[in-house]
Amino acid sequence: MSDLSQAPRLAGPRPVSAPRGTDLHCADWQIEAAYRMIQNNLDPAVAENPDALVVYGGIGKAARNWPAFEAILESLRQLQPDETLLVQSGKPVGVFRTHAGAPRVLIANSNLVPRWATWEHFNELDRKGLMMFGQMTAGSWIYIGTQGIVQGTYETFVEAGRQHFGGDLAGRWVLTAGLGGMGGAQPLAASFAGACSLNIECQQSRIDFRLRTRYLDKQARDLDEALALIQHHTSRKEAVSIGLCGNAAEIVPELVKRAKAGGPRPDIVTDQTSAHDIINGYLPIGWSVEQWQAAQKDPAQHATLKQAAGESCAQHVRAMLAFHAMGIPTVDYGNNLRQVAFDFGVQDAFAYPGFVPAYIRPLFCRGVGPFRWVALSGDPEDIRKTDARMKELFPENKHLHRWLDMAGERISFQGLPARICWIGLGDRDKAGLAFNEMVRTGELKAPIVIGRDHLDSGSVASPNRETEAMQDGSDAVSDWPLLNALLNTASGASWVSLHHGGGVGMGYSQHAGVVMVCDGTKEADEKIRRVLWNDPATGVMRHADAGYDLAVECAKEHGLKLPMVGK
Amino acid sequence: MSDLSQAPRLAGPRPVSAPRGTDLHCADWQIEAAYRMIQNNLDPAVAENPDALVVYGGIGKAARNWPAFEAILESLRQLQPDETLLVQSGKPVGVFRTHAGAPRVLIANSNLVPRWATWEHFNELDRKGLMMFGQMTAGSWIYIGTQGIVQGTYETFVEAGRQHFGGDLAGRWVLTAGLGGMGGAQPLAASFAGACSLNIECQQSRIDFRLRTRYLDKQARDLDEALALIQHHTSRKEAVSIGLCGNAAEIVPELVKRAKAGGPRPDIVTDQTSAHDIINGYLPIGWSVEQWQAAQKDPAQHATLKQAAGESCAQHVRAMLAFHAMGIPTVDYGNNLRQVAFDFGVQDAFAYPGFVPAYIRPLFCRGVGPFRWVALSGDPEDIRKTDARMKELFPENKHLHRWLDMAGERISFQGLPARICWIGLGDRDKAGLAFNEMVRTGELKAPIVIGRDHLDSGSVASPNRETEAMQDGSDAVSDWPLLNALLNTASGASWVSLHHGGGVGMGYSQHAGVVMVCDGTKEADEKIRRVLWNDPATGVMRHADAGYDLAVECAKEHGLKLPMVGK
Ligand SMILES: NC(=O)c1ccc[n+]([C@@H]2O[C@H](COP(=O)([O-])OP(=O)(O)OC[C@H]3O[C@@H](n4cnc5c(N)ncnc54)[C@H](O)[C@@H]3O)[C@@H](O)[C@H]2O)c1
Ligand SMILES: NC(=O)c1ccc[n+]([C@@H]2O[C@H](COP(=O)([O-])OP(=O)(O)OC[C@H]3O[C@@H](n4cnc5c(N)ncnc54)[C@H](O)[C@@H]3O)[C@@H](O)[C@H]2O)c1
Repeated sequence: MSDLSQAPRLAGPRPVSAPRGTDLHCADWQIEAAYRMIQNNLDPAVAENPDALVVYGGIGKAARNWPAFEAILESLRQLQPDETLLVQSGKPVGVFRTHAGAPRVLIANSNLVPRWATWEHFNELDRKGLMMFGQMTAGSWIYIGTQGIVQGTYETFVEAGRQHFGGDLAGRWVLTAGLGGMGGAQPLAASFAGACSLNIECQQSRIDFRLRTRYLDKQARDLDEALALIQHHTSRKEAVSIGLCGNAAEIVPELVKRAKAGGPRPDIVTDQTSAHDIINGYLPIGWSVEQWQAAQKDPAQHATLKQAAGESCAQHVRAMLAFHAMGIPTVDYGNNLRQVAFDFGVQDAFAYPGFVPAYIRPLFCRGVGPFRWVALSGDPEDIRKTDARMKELFPENKHLHRWLDMAGERISFQGLPARICWIGLGDRDKAGLAFNEMVRTGELKAPIVIGRDHLDSGSVASPNRETEAMQDGSDAVSDWPLLNALLNTASGASWVSLHHGGGVGMGYSQHAGVVMVCDGTKEADEKIRRVLWNDPATGVMRHADAGYDLAVECAKEHGLKLPMVGK
Repeated sequence: MSDLSQAPRLAGPRPVSAPRGTDLHCADWQIEAAYRMIQNNLDPAVAENPDALVVYGGIGKAARNWPAFEAILESLRQLQPDETLLVQSGKPVGVFRTHAGAPRVLIANSNLVPRWATWEHFNELDRKGLMMFGQMTAGSWIYIGTQGIVQGTYETFVEAGRQHFGGDLAGRWVLTAGLGGMGGAQPLAASFAGACSLNIECQQSRIDFRLRTRYLDKQARDLDEALALIQHHTSRKEAVSIGLCGNAAEIVPELVKRAKAGGPRPDIVTDQTSAHDIINGYLPIGWSVEQWQAAQKDPAQHATLKQAAGESCAQHVRAMLAFHAMGIPTVDYGNNLRQVAFDFGVQDAFAYPGFVPAYIRPLFCRGVGPFRWVALSGDPEDIRKTDARMKELFPENKHLHRWLDMAGERISFQGLPARICWIGLGDRDKAGLAFNEMVRTGELKAPIVIGRDHLDSGSVASPNRETEAMQDGSDAVSDWPLLNALLNTASGASWVSLHHGGGVGMGYSQHAGVVMVCDGTKEADEKIRRVLWNDPATGVMRHADAGYDLAVECAKEHGLKLPMVGK
């Protein structure tokens, strides 16, 4: 039994923030990185509800409870460079001797035998103190704040541009709705991608918030002014975002009418109202926001509200279908809007695709996904230097340059300074080795931690989202994320995690996380070469196995050994 | 893309058997071991249906289809000592560079996102060629034939003896029924454990088969003779097994009556009729076997058959409850008999425990489980030498000695010579190091492969079997087997696997396998020390975390570092 008698016996909430600077609290930087990152996840500047240990995404937590959190810290402080700490649903359960080339932490969060994989059973275990919901990067200690959603949305728009407009969104405009927690990233992401955007939002307060944080550039008084502004800026190829207060279920059909009458046509159409929750998330046509909010709170009105919201969603989708029929790229943004419309009588609601099959999967086929890194020094200068290095490493990647410039200018750091960008097989290990070199030479003040979301190319099975509509029908096969975690462990990642239920809830997904610390050593070079190559390569493998030509080509290009692909 | 153009292009069934001797077909013995073991699993002497690649347990397979099987062999022949082969549901999907200290093969079989984890969805994927059922040791290439079930049953009886009779079953007798595929191991296992047994079986052909293979010693003409034989042999402390042709639902109640009237009382009561399937598995009272078999084939009679079988199960369980009430150790052997009886009106059917909570869990608490090894030389002499070495290593373990002697005498090898015995934390690494030394010195002709069933202390979550009725209610938490697989990978096992659905079917279990090759090298010493210690240690950890005193003590004794146990 390890002696934790010296451990601080704090068992309740306290303000947490990661140590900065170069002093070590643990045996080496591989361990120190985990020590800092779990604390960074709970920094009030990062976490949504730090007192409850909630990082993001509903109840996605970094540790099961406060005593478990303190015991994780203490275990890391005592951990030796040839030992591995096991974390079970946010609780440190064992320390074992492994070897220097193995991960220092192995994590399994929220995993349940399938027959019992429901919120009911999870909640029961949670109440008993036996479980925790790890979401994706919450329980695997690599969440970096809202930069992630901006970047993911940016990549989606960029890929749309690549597919439909020769990679150039200048002079194009995106029509969307919803400026909430996630949807609020759309105007900024569209601007970063080089497009104008018209963002319909029914609550003025949401528009105000996005104007204040500079995620949104301007608000139009009415539709005519909005279209005039769009016309003005697109003709000048300026990427400007326009907010419009109103109901998407009314305005989008009106836009269809005008387009049919020869008026302006959007270049990309999508939506991020909260249609997945038609009691609280979608304002019905003709209702005022006050009336809507009152009905939300009054269960007696729920049936009426549901009916009205559902019918409005149907109108909204009919309009999106009309744009789709005009040949305008139209996608669902994972908010279940098509399903609601279908339930309310729109038989061809699913005629336009979801954003993952349409725009994310082609990226996944090349192992491209949300690569992120954090400066353990705490110094923003370290991130600025890595930004510059990234531009040198990938001189031809204009979208990347654009992103890095815009992000450097407009994204404020939360907690330890961090950067995210989507890069793929062949680029991730290159970046990792470059960062490790910068740590080695002292160009950076302290080591860099590299990680990614579980929403990535080879690391997730989630049939309602990341693996929706796979070409071969293998949406629900979760062998792939398990192999991803096992291979990253075998490759010597710094920490590896296996989760269940992230993104879409209990029973609906299984996924894996990985983190690699660039501590400047030669040993880290070796590990980086393996981990940051193998990890995206499993994504290319998974998609090549499913028959995607893009992935098969990418595998060939990079000389992957896939024994049965093409056989 | 790897070049498999030289691969034999066999795509259909062929007789398979593992190479013997010391010539290598692969780069080293770590890889050669996997190469031999997958073939050994499909040896006609081992596999139940080798042409269909089925090893055991319904449709538990070693490879997805014949082309996948051939591609696995070819991939292993080409694999380098710093590479790792990934196998996804029986198909080789990728070869990646890792390092010499990492596993050579990583396997994920039959894993499905929980919401889709049903036989229906699995079958659909199976038909499309996207999946395979791996059972436990079938898809992880470490099945060794029926020796496993004899040994598992033996350990169950021995543990019962330990708990109820001071570790001595001499002069005791077991009452049971069912001499089918699994149940037929009972008489031999009881004899090995030192007890007499009375085995009721309704089909004479089954009794004949067990007499022929010497799993059963004698058949009694009737109950009177059976009891006379029991009386005769128990009084002489001879371990003799007696078969009795008849219906357990009639004979067990009759035995209760006699016991209540002062007649003989069994010392242990259990049952292995196939009550889990009341159409095909349980003969109703008053029915002839011929009538029963005809009714099985005639759907029109199923309702009647079900009713009659269910009522008979109820009678049977009432009798077992009566023995239980007399203080006689009575356990369910995982055949669902209690549930059927409950459904047919026996409200207290669950008053006596299942065999896992009663007898297996105390073993699991000390990391004791089904340790097995195989002689890659193919020479039975190698196993005889390891048997002798085991007895030297564990001079005080009388049950182990008894097992090894009996097994050496009465168990015939299937495929490569192999041995199984249940040992725990602290003993497994000791045995592994001893075997490795014997390989190094040349005492053994070729390396030894050590593995285990997935049914083990730290490697399975299966709420209807291995993790039924955990003390803290954590039956369905599958973080544990995932951590087990990750840790074994980090510890440098030779191959590691993660499966779903073994033993109890789709949706009902998640479990991990591990194999370690003793190739005589110093590097293997290091790996053995880690893997064969850490693997059972995760079992002790899991049970200590659930609050079992035995496990907490065992963890203390062995100095395990469990940060929050006892806190
Ligand atoms: N699949 C993915 O990866 C993914 C990514 C981002 C968002 N989403 C989905 O997008 C949706 C939005 O997410 P969020 O976090 O921003 O939700 P949110 O509830 O914070 O925001 C929704 C916004 O829509 C507005 N709205 C509602 N009805 C409207 C109407 N009829 N017209 C105009 N505006 C209206 C609301 O006022 C609110 O501001 C959710 O359904 C979410 O699940 C999915
Ligand atoms: N949980 C475990 O680990 C575990 C281990 C071993 C066996 N089991 C269970 O034990 C049961 C037996 O397994 P098996 O493979 O031997 O099955 P099986 O079908 O091969 O054998 C069952 C035998 O019971 C006999 N039988 C049926 N009704 C009878 C009656 N009324 N009286 C006397 N004999 C009767 C049949 O003739 C048959 O020989 C199954 O339900 C199996 O699931 C469970």
